[in-house]
Amino acid sequence: MRMLSVKTLTPIYALLLSASFAAWSQTPPPAPTFPKELRDQLQALRDAALTSDYAWHQLEHLTENIGPRPAGSPQAQAAAEYVAAEMRKLGLDVHLEPALVSHWIRGEEKAQLVEYPGQAPETTQRIVLATISGSSATPAEGITADVVVVHNFDELTALGHEKVAGRIVLFNVPYDERKALAGMAFEAYGEAVVYRGRGAKAAAELGAVASLIRSVGGADYRLPHTGYSVPAGIPAAALAAEDADLVEHLAAQGRVRMTLTLTPQSLPDVTGYNVVADLKGSEHPEQIVVVSGHLDSWDLGRGAIDDGAGVVISMATAELLQRLHIRPRRTLRVIAWMDEENGGGGNKAYAKTHVAEFSNHIAAIESDAGAGHPLGFYMKMPPAAIARLQPLLDILRPVGSTVFRSTPHSPGSDIDPLVEAGVPGIGIIQDGRKYFDCHHTAADTLDKVDPRELRENAAAMAVMGYALASMPDVLPR
Amino acid sequence: MRMLSVKTLTPIYALLLSASFAAWSQTPPPAPTFPKELRDQLQALRDAALTSDYAWHQLEHLTENIGPRPAGSPQAQAAAEYVAAEMRKLGLDVHLEPALVSHWIRGEEKAQLVEYPGQAPETTQRIVLATISGSSATPAEGITADVVVVHNFDELTALGHEKVAGRIVLFNVPYDERKALAGMAFEAYGEAVVYRGRGAKAAAELGAVASLIRSVGGADYRLPHTGYSVPAGIPAAALAAEDADLVEHLAAQGRVRMTLTLTPQSLPDVTGYNVVADLKGSEHPEQIVVVSGHLDSWDLGRGAIDDGAGVVISMATAELLQRLHIRPRRTLRVIAWMDEENGGGGNKAYAKTHVAEFSNHIAAIESDAGAGHPLGFYMKMPPAAIARLQPLLDILRPVGSTVFRSTPHSPGSDIDPLVEAGVPGIGIIQDGRKYFDCHHTAADTLDKVDPRELRENAAAMAVMGYALASMPDVLPR
Repeated sequence: MRMLSVKTLTPIYALLLSASFAAWSQTPPPAPTFPKELRDQLQALRDAALTSDYAWHQLEHLTENIGPRPAGSPQAQAAAEYVAAEMRKLGLDVHLEPALVSHWIRGEEKAQLVEYPGQAPETTQRIVLATISGSSATPAEGITADVVVVHNFDELTALGHEKVAGRIVLFNVPYDERKALAGMAFEAYGEAVVYRGRGAKAAAELGAVASLIRSVGGADYRLPHTGYSVPAGIPAAALAAEDADLVEHLAAQGRVRMTLTLTPQSLPDVTGYNVVADLKGSEHPEQIVVVSGHLDSWDLGRGAIDDGAGVVISMATAELLQRLHIRPRRTLRVIAWMDEENGGGGNKAYAKTHVAEFSNHIAAIESDAGAGHPLGFYMKMPPAAIARLQPLLDILRPVGSTVFRSTPHSPGSDIDPLVEAGVPGIGIIQDGRKYFDCHHTAADTLDKVDPRELRENAAAMAVMGYALASMPDVLPR
Repeated sequence: MRMLSVKTLTPIYALLLSASFAAWSQTPPPAPTFPKELRDQLQALRDAALTSDYAWHQLEHLTENIGPRPAGSPQAQAAAEYVAAEMRKLGLDVHLEPALVSHWIRGEEKAQLVEYPGQAPETTQRIVLATISGSSATPAEGITADVVVVHNFDELTALGHEKVAGRIVLFNVPYDERKALAGMAFEAYGEAVVYRGRGAKAAAELGAVASLIRSVGGADYRLPHTGYSVPAGIPAAALAAEDADLVEHLAAQGRVRMTLTLTPQSLPDVTGYNVVADLKGSEHPEQIVVVSGHLDSWDLGRGAIDDGAGVVISMATAELLQRLHIRPRRTLRVIAWMDEENGGGGNKAYAKTHVAEFSNHIAAIESDAGAGHPLGFYMKMPPAAIARLQPLLDILRPVGSTVFRSTPHSPGSDIDPLVEAGVPGIGIIQDGRKYFDCHHTAADTLDKVDPRELRENAAAMAVMGYALASMPDVLPR
């Protein structure tokens, strides 16, 4: 999940504790009902999901046999072909739909402090960091400059051109781990990630020769977090939290000079593929419900929580339906999006190709906030539409997914074009308290996913996806 | 802290819960007492330590201004000179005592899987690892071989020469984090670390071309843990836990080949220095009480918990005494040991130089298990000696250091030669539940130390050190 804005998502635990919300969720308008057959099918799907390891095995393959899947990479290509083949095996109608996607390659990345207060003779200090995607390359031998530390854009502005020009700017803005642990991880993320997104641009405008941020995430284990940034014509990287603090502490004592070498390559866009796999509807094949996650990942880890998990629980929805011989009334479309992380080429191409069918897209679900326990759903749709889905609360209670949270924004960046066009958009609200510990790092690996929680997510996705595909009426927009 | 044997230290929380121990600690033999003046001084030291940031500021300097301090490095030299200067500032009689110490330099270290089941075309998988000190160097272009995974020495032996020769052996032995969290961190460590110590030797004996272990430690954030290993004539490294699991999972599916490049250099021993700083005793200057930690660290982190903390709380004992104008009856000797981690050259040199005074070493304390809350002390001395220290329990109660734990082994590796010679040996029992999360990793940085807990440790060291130096009689041996 890329996400440069804090506004999309809101605190869940705060929400769960709020009396007004509790009142709202417990006293819906006159309760709609689902036909008994649909309820029975949803319960069967739920129970089958909660005992199935299909999603887990798919995640094993994507993360461990294929590995990291940055857009434009051979792994991303292999992953698209793999998912397509798996969906064909299930009998779905599968298309690899081409999209122009980014092609970014991390190069060498190293930094050291070469001058600082108290420096021992003949020594330097190693700085652990990760290039972020908008970075320009330094010369092979690196650049060397004084470092200036700020904590927000106002401090940068106050320094002005005179004190920024020719220097390396470090935005040392901590991710608020306490807020995250209180259930407001996305808010904490949003507050800090603006500096990853726009810091380099702001620094470059004042003449900085490079821009650094403190990694946006929790759990300080000398682990840098990469991610998207707006290209600003200067080198840009994220320091491990410990290194950001080191630089700040030393800079408070005197002059700090750093040699920084980053040699990323932003190559021309290449053709990548969204995997689009349809389980045709029995009554309204032209009506489409999307269940989706994004197949690309950052290069450092193996793309387990971001977002292999979202892809495999979408695949699991199809597998469950086929295994239980449950045919949706509308078409259930599994999409594995390409290049969510670094440009959104996949969703842009989908929007271009499918715009004529948008009015027939009944709803779109994207899971892109990890594989933590699913607390419920973000919903971008009118209250009347949310009300129609109330019968799902009973079905989902055993999964622990009982929150329907209305949101004014798209709950997933790949379904954003659909949502913009008025399609009801849904995201799974995963427990995100630890999500940003490993997000965009080398530690985004299979072991970070709990198999039981992944099954819960598969259940949530299958129940919501199938309900939308087979409920009597389509949702009001 | 190096430690290749599990036997030295024992579970604290289990201990605290044990009825027999509780009975023992609550019903000592006829209670000895300390003179009122000594009690007053100890309380004053304790209270001053609990409000002093001296140790913290020293730790800041050692970790952030000087940085990692591997034996033989310019940083280790600078650190010894710095500690000596600080002790002179306090008015101590300071000597930099030469010692032949190891000189090991980490080289390039990288690995990738180049063949494995399900491999995507044109791809490899990156393996995160850290060279361990007994490693031979590979050629610059690396070595490539099949990987065979085992979980203990018996499995290795069962494979035999035929299935090991020419291969890379991976000992995938997990550190038992649940045991660690239950207060048995050192036992968990000891169970796994034998493979770091002796795995390469065992693998080499069967013809392996390299030996890998799973990193010994908790908190899986793709963080390799380095450390000492017995040189075995083959390359040797520790994989991040995630990478050990990846290799194991893939090897269970079929052939796994790895290209491994490690270019460490084990250079000839060089002269390093123990810092030996005496605060002369007023009545028995010839009698010596040692308070100590080791100044060298591994190279990946900045040596905060291992063992900057031990050094700075020893320095703090001297600072507190001088600041409060408390003169010990015996000589209080602060030692900052060199090369605990990779050969023990410092303590060997001390033993050689000072063997004639060993009979006048009244006791030796070493703190080398981090900076967690001090629960009490390990004690290698006769029960009658431990009983003499019972009055300290009242003094230390406000610090929370109330356990005197008899141990049959030296509680610190640098004081081992003293303990072997019959000198009562003491270690601080730090809360070690999280110690091995960052131990020997890049994440051993200042932020891993809690300032309050460091003050508690300084209080524990000062109280124990001064009591030994000024109690009426010396401890029985």
